[in-house]
Amino acid sequence: MRITVLSGGVGGARFVRGLRALDSADDITVIANTADDIWLFGLKICPDLDSLMYTLGGGSDDDRGWGRSKETWNVKRELAAYGVEPSWFGLGDKDLATHVVRTQMTNAGYSLSEVTAALCARWEPGVRLLPMSDDRVETHVVVDDPSEPSGRRAIHFQEYWVRLRAAVLARGVVPVGIDDASAAPGVVDAVLDADVVVFAPSNPVVSIGTILGVADVAAAVRAAPAPVVGLSPIVGPGPVHGMADAMLAAIGVDVTAAAVAAHYGARSRGGFIDGWLVDIRDGSQLDTIRSAGIEPRAVPLLMTDPQATARMAAAALQLGADLR
Amino acid sequence: MRITVLSGGVGGARFVRGLRALDSADDITVIANTADDIWLFGLKICPDLDSLMYTLGGGSDDDRGWGRSKETWNVKRELAAYGVEPSWFGLGDKDLATHVVRTQMTNAGYSLSEVTAALCARWEPGVRLLPMSDDRVETHVVVDDPSEPSGRRAIHFQEYWVRLRAAVLARGVVPVGIDDASAAPGVVDAVLDADVVVFAPSNPVVSIGTILGVADVAAAVRAAPAPVVGLSPIVGPGPVHGMADAMLAAIGVDVTAAAVAAHYGARSRGGFIDGWLVDIRDGSQLDTIRSAGIEPRAVPLLMTDPQATARMAAAALQLGADLR
Repeated sequence: MRITVLSGGVGGARFVRGLRALDSADDITVIANTADDIWLFGLKICPDLDSLMYTLGGGSDDDRGWGRSKETWNVKRELAAYGVEPSWFGLGDKDLATHVVRTQMTNAGYSLSEVTAALCARWEPGVRLLPMSDDRVETHVVVDDPSEPSGRRAIHFQEYWVRLRAAVLARGVVPVGIDDASAAPGVVDAVLDADVVVFAPSNPVVSIGTILGVADVAAAVRAAPAPVVGLSPIVGPGPVHGMADAMLAAIGVDVTAAAVAAHYGARSRGGFIDGWLVDIRDGSQLDTIRSAGIEPRAVPLLMTDPQATARMAAAALQLGADLR
Repeated sequence: MRITVLSGGVGGARFVRGLRALDSADDITVIANTADDIWLFGLKICPDLDSLMYTLGGGSDDDRGWGRSKETWNVKRELAAYGVEPSWFGLGDKDLATHVVRTQMTNAGYSLSEVTAALCARWEPGVRLLPMSDDRVETHVVVDDPSEPSGRRAIHFQEYWVRLRAAVLARGVVPVGIDDASAAPGVVDAVLDADVVVFAPSNPVVSIGTILGVADVAAAVRAAPAPVVGLSPIVGPGPVHGMADAMLAAIGVDVTAAAVAAHYGARSRGGFIDGWLVDIRDGSQLDTIRSAGIEPRAVPLLMTDPQATARMAAAALQLGADLR
């Protein structure tokens, strides 16, 4: 079964790991958000691609939630000793090797797709991992800054997320470069040729939202012959993982499973999804979702262990099959 | 007393540390060889500058002889896991942070002099540390290679030194770029304004030799009003540190203290030095050196401990004073 997943980083990676465990999921393509990417210390860092590679390749630290297992932090400490900013980014020594390889290949002229394929030759993630785009896109977040004449300032998403821990009000989210970005090779075909397209339970704004911000990806999702189903990243009153609520507030979307479904919108009404999985505790929202033209289903949506995650993935595939 | 030292890496750094311990050595400028420099993994690495910084800044591993103390090697291992070549270079995690900072500044347009000053703001080496040149110079070594049509191949000095451990015959030494290199800012003045110019007991070919390969440095050494004295890196039948014998053989110079002195040559006869310190066990060579127009002196030249090294440095200053 050809499954194409749109995914952010950590949460999406765990979901795909569960999906990969299903017998029927023998041909998975993952389209990864790259709008989190950042150049730091002269190195090109792709947090979501790396989370996917490490998690699917067995090299991630699942307790910490991001980065490499058995990591050390000497380079980071030394950079701080040199007084080099920023000091807030979580740059592990093992992780850094990935950035060094990627940067060297990028500076030698290879595309991000080519670099990703080269890195995956080591990690063997068991899926085809594609960046959403080979073009540079960087999400910036607008925050208040009284020292600026405008009273506001745009900072890189990583600074908002990692340094500020999304704890200050986001006035807006700007994916810089997205209007000029094209889908990376293979992305459009992966969507059009899939038996089912799945939105992982990733951030609807800065992960799935930016993937859909690439015009030809959005067009492919709208035109895909296969059903498109999503899993809500909001369970009960907040996000399962990460700080999606802050990002939803920035774009004026309520922090509920139904509101996120409505934000994506029904494909039959010009939106992006046909079906939507919510957690069982959000069963009261099913009618609201259905009235938006989206077929909902309530199942346990907490990725508490690999088995639970695999059951979630199976439910997504079943919803897709029912909609076909 | 204004002392200007021409120095290579590890051995030179130890010598300067001993020199710095002398009360009279209150104004030291070190002109470092940069022809060992290499770009690896997209990073600009300056082994001799780093050895000087780390040793004089208290961050070196004196037991291993190079690199940072309490070093870890995760990045190197990870690069190898990615199959990235070369795998032979000793790239420690802490050390790597220096290369990251240097590379970022270099790519931002700063000169090596400016980068070195910035790095030294952390290390506080207690001397003014200058690269010999801001221009790129890279020593290549010609070795036999039957697979080449010419039967020979030029490899980077680091590959010859680190990977091959100087254990294959060097047919020649080529400091690529040296003819177009100018002395870095401050270098010529440091030589001309010194009270004494000292050649550290560094490699006469690939360390001191390449510094003197920069035309305006050579001219300054020849024209310096102060005496120029050197310390032999050859003690008895071989080099004290490193593998200078292989390099001397490549340029047809005998591996003796006197032969190295003659190779540098007397300033009074168009060469580079006025005085030459040899080890006490090489006392029989004093007449030979004197007949070359160079004032010799025999003292213990083994840097067995900081006190012994300081006595060597004091002997060099005394020889300079006697020649003034």
